[in-house]
Amino acid sequence: MKIKGKDRRALWFENGTIKFIDQRKLPYKLEIFTAKNVDDCAYAITEMVVRGAPAIGAAAVYGMVLGRNNISKTAEILRKTRPTAHDLFYAIDYIITKIKDGKDVLNAANEYVEDIIDRCRRIGENGDKLIKNGMKILTHCNAGALATVDYGTALAIFRTAHKKGKKIFVFVDETRPRLQGLLTDWELEEEKIPHVVIADNAAGHFMRNGEIDIVITGADRIAKNGDFANKIGTYEKAVIAKENDIPFYVAAPISTFDKTIKNGNQIKIEERNRKELAQINEKTIMPEWTNVRNPAFDVTPARYVTGYITEEKIVEN
Amino acid sequence: MKIKGKDRRALWFENGTIKFIDQRKLPYKLEIFTAKNVDDCAYAITEMVVRGAPAIGAAAVYGMVLGRNNISKTAEILRKTRPTAHDLFYAIDYIITKIKDGKDVLNAANEYVEDIIDRCRRIGENGDKLIKNGMKILTHCNAGALATVDYGTALAIFRTAHKKGKKIFVFVDETRPRLQGLLTDWELEEEKIPHVVIADNAAGHFMRNGEIDIVITGADRIAKNGDFANKIGTYEKAVIAKENDIPFYVAAPISTFDKTIKNGNQIKIEERNRKELAQINEKTIMPEWTNVRNPAFDVTPARYVTGYITEEKIVEN
Repeated sequence: MKIKGKDRRALWFENGTIKFIDQRKLPYKLEIFTAKNVDDCAYAITEMVVRGAPAIGAAAVYGMVLGRNNISKTAEILRKTRPTAHDLFYAIDYIITKIKDGKDVLNAANEYVEDIIDRCRRIGENGDKLIKNGMKILTHCNAGALATVDYGTALAIFRTAHKKGKKIFVFVDETRPRLQGLLTDWELEEEKIPHVVIADNAAGHFMRNGEIDIVITGADRIAKNGDFANKIGTYEKAVIAKENDIPFYVAAPISTFDKTIKNGNQIKIEERNRKELAQINEKTIMPEWTNVRNPAFDVTPARYVTGYITEEKIVEN
Repeated sequence: MKIKGKDRRALWFENGTIKFIDQRKLPYKLEIFTAKNVDDCAYAITEMVVRGAPAIGAAAVYGMVLGRNNISKTAEILRKTRPTAHDLFYAIDYIITKIKDGKDVLNAANEYVEDIIDRCRRIGENGDKLIKNGMKILTHCNAGALATVDYGTALAIFRTAHKKGKKIFVFVDETRPRLQGLLTDWELEEEKIPHVVIADNAAGHFMRNGEIDIVITGADRIAKNGDFANKIGTYEKAVIAKENDIPFYVAAPISTFDKTIKNGNQIKIEERNRKELAQINEKTIMPEWTNVRNPAFDVTPARYVTGYITEEKIVEN
């Protein structure tokens, strides 16, 4: 991704440390967090210096490099950071296998990260085939470079189309409760891709009024039948898109397809804490008495999905 | 409405002044704003001490009482306060006509306000017929007593059902950008009606999961064919409700039906300022560079509406 005109990544290995763009400070400030040891790396994952399953996986492989002198202890520490990110456990096991095979741990980690990035780049190339000059696109949450080290999934497509000189315009849902739309806003702003942030409530209005040509989101997990889990609100946008005959695409690497899950009913939805809804940037916006329910994800049935954009191809539904 | 156990109204006439519950301070503080003269009343309307078209109409009739010594000047001042609230102009003309007919201005104003309240009460009675014991209800924005002097429209129904001993549970959309869901939260809290506030994004998830039995909202204007304008996001909820076979009702007095408008396409949607989205309680939540679009209302086509609950009857669609 471009930041201030330069190519940057969400995290990278440098002089025996891991450098992270501190996502807790974005979009307000660009600060670098340096992890000098395994505990620092675990902190970065737990405290959400780094977010997004693929980026967490990348943090973990570099964490294994920092703790290479005691692999089993390192693996134990890192496994405890976030319970649900599938990529985290996959990444740790990947490095352990490579070490057993006698591979250099830093080489293995770099290969892992380059592979993630390359898959995102190819999602961008494939998805770009759907983008026509002048298109207006709706996206939800942040399916960007910050979540995947570089390019992103949905945002890889916007980057590719923009780089090829297509005129596009992106409507970005602010994505309450955590406002990850502002991370998307930041990435698009840095790339000079024309866009606007809207209240989640307004997406339907713009779809009905013919102001949106296509909807593209990321996915957290895709079941065997094509049902998928993603950030809360995705289901609403998918239904409204179908109702208005607007194509709805999911951009995700093959690794997001979970073949052990038959359909969306088997995906358990995490309800998170009150504070996420009742506070913004640690400032309280709701009275103390206010009770909330705060599901973090929802499941969109496959019947609302036009197709899945992967690094291999576009799978039409 | 009950506040701290006592019957209260959003505004009332007392000792030659108009008293308003200051809606700018809610839900955080209960403060009374006193309008001693026409300018104070105009200020209360302009600065949104009072909100909601019927409540603004009530403020205007009492404003005419305060300025009865110079009716034409008073009418001129009050007409300039808010350009779009239909009730404001209707209320001013109502008082002018009554004065011409030789009626006492305070009596006429009181009659006007009691009539609004009575219509809301009857909406509550009629709508209550739809409410079964144990029902879970979704509402959007604040269709409450604060907007209509007393009872509310959608909230009149919840109050009536609760008073009759029915167990109900209300899901309240927070209603970004202006979070009017928190006003609904406050009203329901004061009445001890069980409820919870959710992100607007989460409504679809709860509907799909069978946690919502009925959706009831207010309306700002209803066209001849049944299309209606209401707070931004209402359209999304109506589409999702239909998709999940959940009845969707609009609660509104007859005066909201605008027979001069053939269908929803004739309703112009106001796009409001950036600040409403970029700030919450005057605290900035979005970076300076962030561009937004902020439509305040949307139009829901009649085909998504199960019925209209008025003070006369329920009109099934």
